[in-house]
Amino acid sequence: MKPINVGLLGVGTVGGGTFAVLKRNQEEITRRAGRGIVIRMIADRDIEKARKIAGSDVIVTGDANEVVTNPDIEIVIELIGGYTVAKELMLKAIENGKHVITANKALLASHGTEIFAAAQKKGVMVAFEAAVAGGIPIIKALREGLTANRIEWIAGIINGTSNFILSEMRDKGLTFDTVLKQAQKLGYAEADPTFDIEGIDAAHKLTIMAAIAFGIPMQFDKVYTEGITKLTREDIRYAEELGYRIKLLGITKRTPKGIELRVHPTLIPARRLIANVEGVMNAIVVKGDAVGATLYYGAGAGAEPTASSVVADLVDVTRMHTADPRHRVPHLAFQPDLLSNTPILPMEEVETSYYLRLRVIDKPGALADITRVLADLGISIDAMVQKEPSEGEDQVDIIMLTHVAMEKNVNAAIARIKKLPLLTGKVTRIRLEQLSSK
Amino acid sequence: MKPINVGLLGVGTVGGGTFAVLKRNQEEITRRAGRGIVIRMIADRDIEKARKIAGSDVIVTGDANEVVTNPDIEIVIELIGGYTVAKELMLKAIENGKHVITANKALLASHGTEIFAAAQKKGVMVAFEAAVAGGIPIIKALREGLTANRIEWIAGIINGTSNFILSEMRDKGLTFDTVLKQAQKLGYAEADPTFDIEGIDAAHKLTIMAAIAFGIPMQFDKVYTEGITKLTREDIRYAEELGYRIKLLGITKRTPKGIELRVHPTLIPARRLIANVEGVMNAIVVKGDAVGATLYYGAGAGAEPTASSVVADLVDVTRMHTADPRHRVPHLAFQPDLLSNTPILPMEEVETSYYLRLRVIDKPGALADITRVLADLGISIDAMVQKEPSEGEDQVDIIMLTHVAMEKNVNAAIARIKKLPLLTGKVTRIRLEQLSSK
Repeated sequence: MKPINVGLLGVGTVGGGTFAVLKRNQEEITRRAGRGIVIRMIADRDIEKARKIAGSDVIVTGDANEVVTNPDIEIVIELIGGYTVAKELMLKAIENGKHVITANKALLASHGTEIFAAAQKKGVMVAFEAAVAGGIPIIKALREGLTANRIEWIAGIINGTSNFILSEMRDKGLTFDTVLKQAQKLGYAEADPTFDIEGIDAAHKLTIMAAIAFGIPMQFDKVYTEGITKLTREDIRYAEELGYRIKLLGITKRTPKGIELRVHPTLIPARRLIANVEGVMNAIVVKGDAVGATLYYGAGAGAEPTASSVVADLVDVTRMHTADPRHRVPHLAFQPDLLSNTPILPMEEVETSYYLRLRVIDKPGALADITRVLADLGISIDAMVQKEPSEGEDQVDIIMLTHVAMEKNVNAAIARIKKLPLLTGKVTRIRLEQLSSK
Repeated sequence: MKPINVGLLGVGTVGGGTFAVLKRNQEEITRRAGRGIVIRMIADRDIEKARKIAGSDVIVTGDANEVVTNPDIEIVIELIGGYTVAKELMLKAIENGKHVITANKALLASHGTEIFAAAQKKGVMVAFEAAVAGGIPIIKALREGLTANRIEWIAGIINGTSNFILSEMRDKGLTFDTVLKQAQKLGYAEADPTFDIEGIDAAHKLTIMAAIAFGIPMQFDKVYTEGITKLTREDIRYAEELGYRIKLLGITKRTPKGIELRVHPTLIPARRLIANVEGVMNAIVVKGDAVGATLYYGAGAGAEPTASSVVADLVDVTRMHTADPRHRVPHLAFQPDLLSNTPILPMEEVETSYYLRLRVIDKPGALADITRVLADLGISIDAMVQKEPSEGEDQVDIIMLTHVAMEKNVNAAIARIKKLPLLTGKVTRIRLEQLSSK
């Protein structure tokens, strides 16, 4: 059978990796897919660079439109990133009857519903394994591997940059700013690191996972997102003393009142496998009602790990493209006419446990005042540590872990506690999840 | 669309779980599969029990032949286990044009090649996610998620019973015999635990994973298999002191001389994620050339975790059964006409590191004698600990970790060391793997 023809939009890091992997493992990939998979055409603004990567038997153009409209191209890989141009090109490719493979999490989280509808209408596939957690086949696990299950929750370390920063802060006792600079030097963080450290990138990926886990539309605008910039060495150390690690988690959970969708620093028991995922690595725990907790771990970024997912999608599309569209794996795991309208729970309504650090003047009564406020709001304390004041200081840190409480009650408690006469400085609040497999 | 009709052979633990999961999650499973999946017919020797589980709207029979020949049944789930009867029924189901789903690792590892050939000929699917690592979708990860990669090696904790025993031995300092009895009481080990503790069950699963990772036929008879019955508390403790954990691993690795296929207790660095997989849980590390190391973790046995995989296969077959057979995922991941004849490396030729424990008479010269033997055979030492003799004892334990050496050289060294005058008792040898993601 003749090879399937692929057009590649963008030969940056992932594009270059895709080209390299396809070429190096050509023989095995062909044995798996049943036919060859060949990149025939590349579009990139930097034609020189593209030509260098592609060699002489690939058509190189500066105009991506030529690729998405070329009748010989059967699959288009979109690795341009961003919203406007990428979206236009994807829709044009779909309109021209091409299957599309993308790593563009931002675009899918914001406009996925529209893109999948267009693909559905044309009977083509949009594959996006590379959009979440780099090389980890988590989309496949959720859409196909765990189809027996009612998914209860997902919790994932899905941003390598922030996991690297938190790992280094804990391991070496460094400040956030110091490690961020180091991460930028190592190429783990971008010059403008906002997307990574403020949790936005994680929120994109979480949006996609929630959609396919629960059969809901993409709702990026409803994700509660809090980054890691305010975490201190002290909180990381206190958490450790209490048997916890702090990780930036993307969490989505089914509750009777709605679906939780949140990204924030989280204390998790140090003994959990996911608490021991260090550096730039990613890991996702998926809890299903039948299977229990399963975990998927691997490189969440980088040229070849991400290319691993792009090429897996190429093989999938090659294997599946002759199948009746109604019998393919649905884009969002569930049949599109049956998407659920379960509401997303506002953050105020979320129930979880909390780590609270309060800096108080070391005088009798401080603790009594605080615990009274908590009791009044129905928040009960699971563990408490009061630190000895340092030599010559009259302030001490009190650290509390609460039982499960509602976010709005904790917010109210913090507001009241801040006004207490013996309180000084701000109240640090970090959410805490047991991630129990029960 | 009308539901797809399923026949179930055997309603033991997994069969009952499959029935329960399909029923409980019917609505979501239908939304995923695009049509209903209904068990219409059950065969079990215990008709009474089967009827109790199935209710009144399912046909119950004592004769499995009625199921595999029934023209209304489209998919047969084989959960009888064993070789002869299960194989006959599977082949008969295939002959009758039915897709087959099985959890029968022993049968596939021994006769998979024949069964897949029959299915290939008839254009039907044989799905077997439940055969390896219970609820973990590892078959899907290998056959579909990592298709971009040249798989370099796989190392897995794929037998929950032995992992439970090793975890308890380490955690509580108990002997193998004590924990085995406890495992039997808890239902984690069978009355005759041979398959689990001697590594045979792990060897079955490893055979299947190696086949789909490397595109080779099933070669169960070539797996080197060594169980955990000879492990002592002392070795577990010494390993711990050196920064290692002992796990029963199934390892398959591509080398220039052939494919390694081996199950044995293995020291692995305690910091590795897989070293922290405790109790009856399973985990598999897969190293691909593009993606690097990925890890898959979850429940490796039990009614509902295994049913999770059986039902995922049901959804897969339902989604895929109208597709052109040549475009489905190949049974063994690679197109069957292109299976590789790479040889399996004999254990003697395997190269790995070793933990050696030698009990010597505490006199000058013992260590010199031993190190000379090792040096003569080209085995170099990475770390060594000599224990102080206990009060009143004249024997001491010497523990050595070697660099990578060839198994036959280590065998020869051990044979020579045993004959040294200052040696007493036997030499304990446990293999050691770094499982580095590099």
